[in-house]
Amino acid sequence: MAGEEVILLSVYPSMFSMRVRIALAEKGVKYELKEEDLTNKSLLLLEMNPVHKKVPVLIHNGKPILESLIIVQYIDEVWHDKNPLEPSDPYERAQARFWADFIDKKVFDPARGIWATKGEEQEAAKKEFIEILKILEGELGEKPYFGGETFGLVDVALIPLYSWFYAFETCGNFKIESQCPKLVAWAKFCMQRESVSQSLSDPHSVYDTVLFLKKMFGIE
Amino acid sequence: MAGEEVILLSVYPSMFSMRVRIALAEKGVKYELKEEDLTNKSLLLLEMNPVHKKVPVLIHNGKPILESLIIVQYIDEVWHDKNPLEPSDPYERAQARFWADFIDKKVFDPARGIWATKGEEQEAAKKEFIEILKILEGELGEKPYFGGETFGLVDVALIPLYSWFYAFETCGNFKIESQCPKLVAWAKFCMQRESVSQSLSDPHSVYDTVLFLKKMFGIE
Repeated sequence: MAGEEVILLSVYPSMFSMRVRIALAEKGVKYELKEEDLTNKSLLLLEMNPVHKKVPVLIHNGKPILESLIIVQYIDEVWHDKNPLEPSDPYERAQARFWADFIDKKVFDPARGIWATKGEEQEAAKKEFIEILKILEGELGEKPYFGGETFGLVDVALIPLYSWFYAFETCGNFKIESQCPKLVAWAKFCMQRESVSQSLSDPHSVYDTVLFLKKMFGIE
Repeated sequence: MAGEEVILLSVYPSMFSMRVRIALAEKGVKYELKEEDLTNKSLLLLEMNPVHKKVPVLIHNGKPILESLIIVQYIDEVWHDKNPLEPSDPYERAQARFWADFIDKKVFDPARGIWATKGEEQEAAKKEFIEILKILEGELGEKPYFGGETFGLVDVALIPLYSWFYAFETCGNFKIESQCPKLVAWAKFCMQRESVSQSLSDPHSVYDTVLFLKKMFGIE
């Protein structure tokens, strides 16, 4: 679609922003990336997302689309000709949406606990995090992607987490691969896609961000 | 679609179950309603929703669909000929999904706080609840429905809350209508639809449930 204006308001280590970058890359959509400073939010961000004031925001021909999974679905629907992300069958689609929603509801609290807490609380967060990943590993089964033979919505929803694994492992002093080898193999397989490898933040940069956040929140 | 088997695992005062009942009624889908006892969950529920073990569950020809908004979307997609609930335009659809998601994220915590807490905490919950309703009232604007001229996804997502207003007002000793008159007018307008009036639980029964829950949790 020529002449279209697509802008993404993003934050570099944001897993939610990465989802949108992957979806746009899958579709081959050219866009302008505007990095936000969350300590000094732009007027554009406040104007485009007055309710939550959060990234990512996709601005398509001047109109904002909000919430990462909703944005990914929007991208999939507008640029529907290339690499469909949602299954075409309603039941399969509902299943994919269930797992994407499961990721949103279950993964991020324990993930945060790994770097933002210590002692027993951190151990509980690590344990819960691994339990959630194991449920996801069970859903993956022997498929190459959560979407089966094709890379899909659940893959887009989950793969950004992989860019945080180094930070989790370093802060939590544990190895995810030894407990969830299939999930890590899936992540490495996803990384072979240019849409993923070019959209995921560098794990060491993510770790630097985590160190910065720990300092800001006074977590030693 | 003749010969189809549609079962809904539900709990009478559950706002999430009511959403599904409304959507099925809008589409004119006949279904078997199975009321669950959450203190003694059925084997069918545990089998159909092993991850969350929660209602509502829609079982369509033996296959489970989970999470109320995902179920509503599924119903809308499978029985697409009658009363579409999601807008056909991708941008309008993303907007509707944003507001349905907003309701899921923002309404239920303060709503619970109104009956499950007391003192300052309860006052804070009431204040936050009204603030959220006012944001929704702003989005409604002068439209008859959130979906504009047609009853849609956001209306389905929000209207079950209305059946809890009596319980909130009685527990919280306040009147919602005096602060959010437009929202209450919208609710009354929705209640003129048979799909809504026949699917919403009786406010006095909901209040009885709330009293039971207060007793169970030791909240006097």
